[in-house]
Parts: sequence; C-alpha cells; structure tokens
Amino acid sequence: MSHVVDLAKELISRQSVTPLDEGCQSLMSDRLSQIGFNIESMVFEDTTNMWARRGTESPVFCFAGHTDVVPTGDLSRWHTPPFQPTIIDDYLHGRGAADMKGSLAAMVIATERFVAKHPDHKGSIAYLITSDEEGPFINGTTRVIDTLEARNEKITWALVGEPSSTHKLGDVVKNGRRGSLTGHLTVKGIQGHVAYPHLADNPIHKASPALAELAQMHWDNGNDFFPPTSFQIANINGGTGASNVIPGDLNVMFNFRYSTEVTAEILIARVLSILDAHGLDYDIDWVYNGLPFLTGDGPLLEATKESIREITGYDTDPQTSGGTSDGRFIAPTGAQVIELGPVNATIHKVNECVNTADLELLALCYERILEKLLC
Amino acid sequence: MSHVVDLAKELISRQSVTPLDEGCQSLMSDRLSQIGFNIESMVFEDTTNMWARRGTESPVFCFAGHTDVVPTGDLSRWHTPPFQPTIIDDYLHGRGAADMKGSLAAMVIATERFVAKHPDHKGSIAYLITSDEEGPFINGTTRVIDTLEARNEKITWALVGEPSSTHKLGDVVKNGRRGSLTGHLTVKGIQGHVAYPHLADNPIHKASPALAELAQMHWDNGNDFFPPTSFQIANINGGTGASNVIPGDLNVMFNFRYSTEVTAEILIARVLSILDAHGLDYDIDWVYNGLPFLTGDGPLLEATKESIREITGYDTDPQTSGGTSDGRFIAPTGAQVIELGPVNATIHKVNECVNTADLELLALCYERILEKLLC
Repeated sequence: MSHVVDLAKELISRQSVTPLDEGCQSLMSDRLSQIGFNIESMVFEDTTNMWARRGTESPVFCFAGHTDVVPTGDLSRWHTPPFQPTIIDDYLHGRGAADMKGSLAAMVIATERFVAKHPDHKGSIAYLITSDEEGPFINGTTRVIDTLEARNEKITWALVGEPSSTHKLGDVVKNGRRGSLTGHLTVKGIQGHVAYPHLADNPIHKASPALAELAQMHWDNGNDFFPPTSFQIANINGGTGASNVIPGDLNVMFNFRYSTEVTAEILIARVLSILDAHGLDYDIDWVYNGLPFLTGDGPLLEATKESIREITGYDTDPQTSGGTSDGRFIAPTGAQVIELGPVNATIHKVNECVNTADLELLALCYERILEKLLC
Repeated sequence: MSHVVDLAKELISRQSVTPLDEGCQSLMSDRLSQIGFNIESMVFEDTTNMWARRGTESPVFCFAGHTDVVPTGDLSRWHTPPFQPTIIDDYLHGRGAADMKGSLAAMVIATERFVAKHPDHKGSIAYLITSDEEGPFINGTTRVIDTLEARNEKITWALVGEPSSTHKLGDVVKNGRRGSLTGHLTVKGIQGHVAYPHLADNPIHKASPALAELAQMHWDNGNDFFPPTSFQIANINGGTGASNVIPGDLNVMFNFRYSTEVTAEILIARVLSILDAHGLDYDIDWVYNGLPFLTGDGPLLEATKESIREITGYDTDPQTSGGTSDGRFIAPTGAQVIELGPVNATIHKVNECVNTADLELLALCYERILEKLLC
C-alpha cells in the first residue's frame, strides 16, 4: 500500500466535521516539521488553522486546503462506516476521501519527496490549512490571510487541493472562480383586505415586472475564461397565509455569479436602476460572498498544465465554473491561484470515495509542479 | 332603557365565539315562539342553526344573521370586559354589539311590535340564524339553505343584519356582493445550485412575467352596481432559505373579487390562457368562495330605501363593495337579499361598540320594512 493512501486513511479516520480538526493538522505538521517546516497554529474562535513554511525567501509556493469535512448524511445509506476508511475495488471510501483529505495526503507526500531530492530548493514552500472551509468560513482562510497581510507575508503561488477533476485525474483545473454577490430585497407596500384593494398597495404586483426584467436581463457575455454572469432568485416570500389579505411587503433573495467583465458595483447599480425604474419602494442589503479571480497565463498555470500532461499524458482544461472555494480569499492578495484535486463525482454525498491510483498521480503532479517552480 | 338595548345586552353577555351559540338562539326562539313562530333547530356538526317561521304562505320575508362573534383579541386593550355589555356615552360596548347581536335584538323587537299591530299579516316572517358565519361557514347558512331547498321552501326576501352602515345608521345598505374566487397555483421548475443554472429551471423566473401580466390585467369595467373585478396575489412563496439553491417550485395564492360582468369560469379560462402563453408547467386548484349576487330594483330594495328615508330623513346608498356575507348562500335560491345593519367602524376590533339610538332606529327601519312588504 502506498504512502499517500496510508496518510489519507489516517486523516479520514479523524471525525473532523466542520469546524473540528480532530488532530489532522497535527498529523500533517508532525511530518512537515521533520523536513524543516516552521509551524504556526492559528486558532480563531472554533476554527483551527495552520500556517507552515519551509524557507524564508520568495517566491512562496503554498499548498492550501482544509481538514474539515461535511456531515455524513444518512448513515444507513453508507456501504462502509464513513470514518473507517476502506478500500473497495481500488477506491478509498470515507468522508473526506475526495474533499479533500486525499489531496492533503498527496501534498505532504509530494513535499517530502521533493524536499528529499531538493533540500536547497529556491524560495519557500508553505501550507495554509483550515478546519472551516465547509462552514461559515469566517475564522478560517480569510483570517490567516489577514494575519499574513498584516505582517506583509506574501504568497506567490497557491495550489488549492479542491477536487477539480470531473472524469479522470487532472482533466480539469480551476484557474479562477466567478464572483458571488447576494441581494436581500424587501419591496414595501401597504397591507390591506383584498376586498378593498384601493386602500392597499400590493408589493407582489409592484415587484413582479421588476423581477421579470431582472430574470431576463443579459448581464454580460462572459469572456475566454468566464461564462456569462448569471442572476438567480433563490427565495421569494410574501403574504400572511390568508387568502383575503394583501401583504405589506415582499422579501426576495437573489444571487449573482459574475464574471470579470463586470464588478459587484456595476451589478448593484444596474439592479437599483431597474428597481427605481419600476417605482418600487424598497430596502436592499448586499452580501459580498467573494470577488471573481482569474489566474491567467503565467508560471503557475504553465507549470500545472505541463505537469499534468507529463504525468497523465493528456491536456488539462482550465475552467472557472462551479461554486466558490477558499481561493477567493487568497487571490485578492495578488497571489496566482490554481485548484487541482481528484474527481469530484462523490463529494458531499454518501459513499464518498476516491481512486487510489489517482491519489498517487496527484502526488506526482504536485511534486512535478514544485520542481518546475522551485528548482 | 329601551327593549332593543336590553335584548342586545342579554345576547352580548353570552360568550358565543364561533362556532358557539351559548343559548343566544334559545333566547330569540323563546320570544318568537310566544308570538306564533314555529321553531326548528338545525344542528350540523359543531354549528347551531335556527329556522323560525310565522305563517305558511308566500311571500316569505326572512331576517338572516348570526349569533357567533369573532374572538376578543387582546383583552388588555378592551376598556370594558367584552362579554359584560356596558353603555358609555350612549354607546353599547361589547363583542358582537355591532356584528351582529344589536341587529338580532332589533329584528326580534321589530317583529314583536309588528306582529302585535298586524297579527294577520300576509305571507310569512322567517328567521335564518347560524352560529358559524365568522368561521368556516360550512355547517351554517349554506346547510340550512340546502335543507330548505330540499323541501322546496323558498325565501322571497332576505334582510341580513350585517353592519352595512358607514357613518350613520342606514347611510349604506348592501344590495349585492362581488363573487370571490381563490386560485392556488404551483409553478414547477427544476431545483439546482445557483452556480449551475443550466442544470436547473427557476420557477420564480418563469412565473414572474406571467404574474406581472395577471397583476396588470384589466378584467372588466364593472357596471352600475359593481366596481371592476379585482385580482390580488395574497401569498407567494418559493425557495429553501439558502442563497445558493434554485427552488424546485413556486407557490402562489391569489384571489378575485368579481362583478356580474364576468363569471368564475371566464376568469379561470383567462388565467389559464395567460399561464399557458408563458409556457409554464403548473398545477392549479380553485376555491369558489361565493358567487356574485345583485338585488336590483324591486319590492325589497324599494321598501328598504323608503323605510330608511322615512325613519332617518336621509337617502341610503345601495352598494356592492366590501367582503362577503352569508347573503351569498341565500341569493342563489332566487331570493332578493339586502344587508342593513349598524355602523361597522368597530367590528372585529377591540372595544367594539354600537350607538344605542342607532339600534332603536334600526328596529324602526326593520318594522317599517315589514309593514311595507307584508301589509
């Protein structure tokens, strides 16, 4: 049995459901400290974070990831106990196998191998690991980044171990993510009895044409790296439950996933313009979930593409689709950010699993990227 | 103290919150049986109803009303205990004073006076009284009417004691009511993640243009007796609460108050046509709350107008606006239906009250109407 799968199994056996770490980071730091890493544990509220660094020079190559996992879901639907890692037909089963304890194991093994071969590599190798990526992400990566920024410690290249692959290891990497912006809109009317509509002002009636316009709006065309910006109303609620009462207000929650062709400020201005054009009386609150980022052509993307091609024999496809990741907190510091991890078909589901050979390939890819960037 | 107010106080002191009657009907029937009424108690499930009739001939003049009252609401906001009738500055205070125990007292007193003067009146006098007008109205007036229809017993003229007046006694009578039709609409989409909108189908987005069209639709112009038909969305609900999930369906509840220029069938056809034109996938259930009815020029409206003018000195204004009443169940039998009762400013509120002089005027009006129709 390989070292990568051994370490992955040790990590999976720890029940580190968000925000718990349950010793995963100690397991990693014990090994990293043996090969010259300086370890800083950063505990913020309920969240355990680790910043580890080997070397003091630039450039800084950083493995980024998380030790926490999502809840198991219905235990009766698991074929194996989720925290007893089990190999069945070349697949390692267990919660976190693919998201992302397999990646963490591959990072550590790749680093050990690389340092053994290149003890005097240039620059630095770092680890930014959190136990709150799957949760509210308030005390995780974002606070470690704040700490680093405060002391002007910069990451040059971040490789996030999120499971980016779709069919086979490395077929897709994420070289950016769309921005995410949420609006909480309250359209105000005047409550009344449906039998006396002239004494009331129905906020659902007033809002419907504006919502229809927002829903069919073309926000941008995207670009070579990003799909077009999308707008989705996720929640709408108005009414007392009674059939004879016109409600006093209507609550709408919507979300943008947006490309680098627009900014949150542009989207907000366009939404307000539509709401105002319809003469609505409203309150609106905005939540900035993450700015869009893009790692275009450059050393990190180049090294990642070449390494995948050399190890697997095929080309990777850099994409920016899908949800958010902690890369959104690292990229604003100026770092280049790429996500590369195993196939994501089973993540967050029951019977999460990862191909054991893929974990070996992943460790080889990580090691090759280190070689290309730090030798 | 007058007889009308005395009887009203006796009725108010009974805590007959829907569907309870608490002896109110017995109090009335004891007095009516003494002046030659035949009394039938009709108890359906939790509801107590009374059908009382003096005479066997046509035409049949029927007083209609209810002994139940709405709940008190916040007791601490009442200046007097709601079931301890109290006169303050010429106003009788108590739950049901205006809706409609004052009217019931005026009916009984008017009938006693009329019968004393005209023991051999033509036709019949009847009472259709229920204890479930303020509630689900399933076992009340509608079932008494079913019973009468089954034995072909017809009401010629019904005078409902609902508080029709707005500023002074008799300034407004209701000579009809709009129809009420409720639609329960479910627009179906496909649930998904907001980051992958191409894999989902947002029912809020699909429904918004259709709702906007329904909200701005001109349904009819009304007529001399009815305001234009109105459409109001009373409730709209969609979404899981999360900001990153596109909901699988959207629930909308709307209500029509409609004139005699359209029918429920026409409205339904027009709604379905709009939903279909927008390509929606939907389920819809309809609830027929009541058909519209109108009592145009004829003996009952004429007698009511003349009586009010003779007793009060001013003209009444026949209207069809406002909510529903049990008149909707009586009118479909072919009966003419008018609603005449005291000022409705405090009904369903705390500190419900009625002017004591108005109750006297109301009894005089009722008596005068009996004279015009049955002498």
